[in-house]
Amino acid sequence: MNDCIFCAIVAGTAPASVVLDEPDVLAFMDIRPFTSGHLLVVPKRHASGLAQLDPDDGAAVFAAGQRIATALRASSLPIDGVNLFLADGVAAGQEVFHVHLHVVPRTGGDGFGVRARPQSPNRTVLEGTADAIRSALTVPEG
Amino acid sequence: MNDCIFCAIVAGTAPASVVLDEPDVLAFMDIRPFTSGHLLVVPKRHASGLAQLDPDDGAAVFAAGQRIATALRASSLPIDGVNLFLADGVAAGQEVFHVHLHVVPRTGGDGFGVRARPQSPNRTVLEGTADAIRSALTVPEG
Ligand SMILES: [Zn+2]
Ligand SMILES: [Zn+2]
Repeated sequence: MNDCIFCAIVAGTAPASVVLDEPDVLAFMDIRPFTSGHLLVVPKRHASGLAQLDPDDGAAVFAAGQRIATALRASSLPIDGVNLFLADGVAAGQEVFHVHLHVVPRTGGDGFGVRARPQSPNRTVLEGTADAIRSALTVPEG
Repeated sequence: MNDCIFCAIVAGTAPASVVLDEPDVLAFMDIRPFTSGHLLVVPKRHASGLAQLDPDDGAAVFAAGQRIATALRASSLPIDGVNLFLADGVAAGQEVFHVHLHVVPRTGGDGFGVRARPQSPNRTVLEGTADAIRSALTVPEG
């Protein structure tokens, strides 16, 4: 049908270390972990990006990520925090075009983090940007 | 009641540039944006972290983030991708202890990204980690 590696994992035709198998969602270990325990939560139905993702599948993906993060932090594993991360589009660093939520367990000094150059725009600038985003939200999509 | 800045924004007693106001969720501009258009989605009900967050509120937060991301990418704004990011716990970089999902619009060369030292554990190591996580998921929480 397609060349999607995550669809192949969902279908059981590609190997993966699965931690959670639910009707609409699968969670498995990332093979290039940012930190020990880094895993991916994917919808079973293929969707290349957030615009193509069924909102119910999105809710199920997040719910699984929340449940896994909570369990990790409550467990005896050496985990002090968790980052959830999702990349939508090449410019955002997306490499596999099947929506996936990264769940990244954190401990002090693990080397993971975001790099950014935060700005401090004044309220006028923020309101201008907010206006543009409000317009984008009210224009019919598609 | 409490000192939470996001609860004050939800209550309307602290300023914010709001882009989306729904029954259970508010989205507003981050005052220290990683990129232009960086905003935060928060549940209106206070929850310090993912373990305290009502799963329905979590689903509503993600749904709002997905909707905003999709609208941003379909808009005329110069946005080529979007990252969703959430920090749970001090070790994960959480600074405000009211759950918030970062929505970060992306363009080429904007300087935002994750830094990490990805590892390449073999399947035996991955399976060992997956085992530990599966155990954490089946042990009753709390
Ligand atoms: Zn797929
Ligand atoms: Zn609060």
